[in-house]
Amino acid sequence: MENISGIAAKEIIKGSLLKEKVDEQVSEYVAQGLVSTSLRGTDSHGIRLIHHYLAGIKSGRINPCPSYFVEKRMPTIAVLDADHTFGHAAGMEAAKIAIEMADEYGSGNVVVKNSSHFGAAAYFALEIAEHDMIGTSYTHSDSLIIPTHGKRSFLGNNPVCFTAPVKGEGPFCLDMATSIITFNAVRQLQERGEKAPENVGTDKNGIPTTNANEIKMLLPVGTYKGYGLSLMVEVLCSMLSGMPYGPHISKMFEDLGKKRYLGHFVGAMNISAFIDINLFKERMADMINELRNEPRLDEGQSVMVAGDPEKNRFLDRNIDGIPVTGQELKDFEALDKKYQLGVEME
Amino acid sequence: MENISGIAAKEIIKGSLLKEKVDEQVSEYVAQGLVSTSLRGTDSHGIRLIHHYLAGIKSGRINPCPSYFVEKRMPTIAVLDADHTFGHAAGMEAAKIAIEMADEYGSGNVVVKNSSHFGAAAYFALEIAEHDMIGTSYTHSDSLIIPTHGKRSFLGNNPVCFTAPVKGEGPFCLDMATSIITFNAVRQLQERGEKAPENVGTDKNGIPTTNANEIKMLLPVGTYKGYGLSLMVEVLCSMLSGMPYGPHISKMFEDLGKKRYLGHFVGAMNISAFIDINLFKERMADMINELRNEPRLDEGQSVMVAGDPEKNRFLDRNIDGIPVTGQELKDFEALDKKYQLGVEME
Repeated sequence: MENISGIAAKEIIKGSLLKEKVDEQVSEYVAQGLVSTSLRGTDSHGIRLIHHYLAGIKSGRINPCPSYFVEKRMPTIAVLDADHTFGHAAGMEAAKIAIEMADEYGSGNVVVKNSSHFGAAAYFALEIAEHDMIGTSYTHSDSLIIPTHGKRSFLGNNPVCFTAPVKGEGPFCLDMATSIITFNAVRQLQERGEKAPENVGTDKNGIPTTNANEIKMLLPVGTYKGYGLSLMVEVLCSMLSGMPYGPHISKMFEDLGKKRYLGHFVGAMNISAFIDINLFKERMADMINELRNEPRLDEGQSVMVAGDPEKNRFLDRNIDGIPVTGQELKDFEALDKKYQLGVEME
Repeated sequence: MENISGIAAKEIIKGSLLKEKVDEQVSEYVAQGLVSTSLRGTDSHGIRLIHHYLAGIKSGRINPCPSYFVEKRMPTIAVLDADHTFGHAAGMEAAKIAIEMADEYGSGNVVVKNSSHFGAAAYFALEIAEHDMIGTSYTHSDSLIIPTHGKRSFLGNNPVCFTAPVKGEGPFCLDMATSIITFNAVRQLQERGEKAPENVGTDKNGIPTTNANEIKMLLPVGTYKGYGLSLMVEVLCSMLSGMPYGPHISKMFEDLGKKRYLGHFVGAMNISAFIDINLFKERMADMINELRNEPRLDEGQSVMVAGDPEKNRFLDRNIDGIPVTGQELKDFEALDKKYQLGVEME
């Protein structure tokens, strides 16, 4: 593996977007979202997506210069029409509205419609937690998960994300897909010629298989529980927004000319209205440190809390850079050359 | 199995509580909560709990006549001090406040503190959905689930509940514990002398076992994902309320003289501020009916959505009554006799 620094990756991503005449603020959000996601170790939703996004601009799927239309329907409810721009940008605009509402009224709930892929849900909820609020973010996505007792996919691998601030360290962050493993993990198994665990994926007929090459659909985490959570996310992102649901959503990696018509949901809640914010953050630190010090079943593996693996990778990658394959590094160098950015890669 | 009608069960429960000088409105909520939960098939959280609750009044754990103290700290945030009464009553008072806030400001978020066991989370979130709102309800509970890589329980089997109205039928209702199976299910396996599935529970040393008699702790659904969801609930119910967390919560079935100091979280969100409420409910019906008609992997098992098993049982039990063991029926008859209620049982 090679490495690329977060700074260089951000310069190349933002520079490429600007050269494609993407709005300055939109470019900033996309670059920041992708790089922070890669630094936190979520490679599937990080910098590698820039090539897909550039293709989406070219094909007309993604609007580089949106005119947002925001309707504040009630003091704590807004609908943001993203005008088919990047979900990263629309989601962050939604987060800012939710934070303002929570500042004034205690909570804010913003639905985004006519949007596109928004990357990692944590990007938005972490921004909210940085304002000493509880953050939530959700998105639906195209059909991939089989409902319990079904044989074909219906809902997407809809993520649930929840954040809360902690004294002395970054926010607590639960950001979970509703399948057992991601399709990206399936691809890695395929590349390595390894078998998949039992009952995580199925072949094209809905029959569970451990042959990674045959896996076309995923099974929900905890069977009907993960399926239920995925449906909850669909209610928030499709039913509240009026966007299509499940099998009616256009595919991310097919027919790049088609707009996605995605919906997201972003929520903020003012903690200091419930309890003294310092007490909250101290007790958060107490609770998660108590958990981290719990006795281990196997001495080699410590008890962690949601978001700990990402925090650890962030510390490492901030110093060592983001690990990329040789091909991925070449692809980034090609962008630098194509757009004449002159970014220092070493 | 014997049967007891929902009407008779409610009369006996409410009558017994009133004879123990429990406040009229509190008695109504407890009776309604327990009976509706049993009618929906969630026997573990239904009418059988009345004997435990009556003991809790006698021992001084539960306050029969609370003086609630409600602070509306911001337009959409309130803290309700339950004064150690039944969680059913405090939770329903919280739901009503959340609904009022959502009516006026779009959303309402109410934390309950100094509370006791609140029964099934669905009771509160379903009430909110009946007002054409999205409802959420959460509670923490005493330590039962082992964190991933740990060997002893820390968090409770903290439930996540989410509801939304649907055209032409009762609300969509996801009400899930964060363990794979409940401890009640373990007890049933013990009674039947059956083995537990693999990796659902552990012995007293944290080692997974299929010997139901040895199971003392439960494993979270989807390993770190269920554990993360349980921690999210703890943030909402303990960190926001100032109540104790996980291992510091007094046990439900031990030392009945100890107050529980539980916290709950109840939220309401106004759907009609996002989208036309009729369109929302129609699309909900479209989506869940489309799911129910999805092709089946096994012809004998249809695709359902969260809450469907409960809806089906509610229809049956409204006609046939709530199935109870002979002993359970005798225990109800004993209450009827003790408190001279004269309830018609047939």
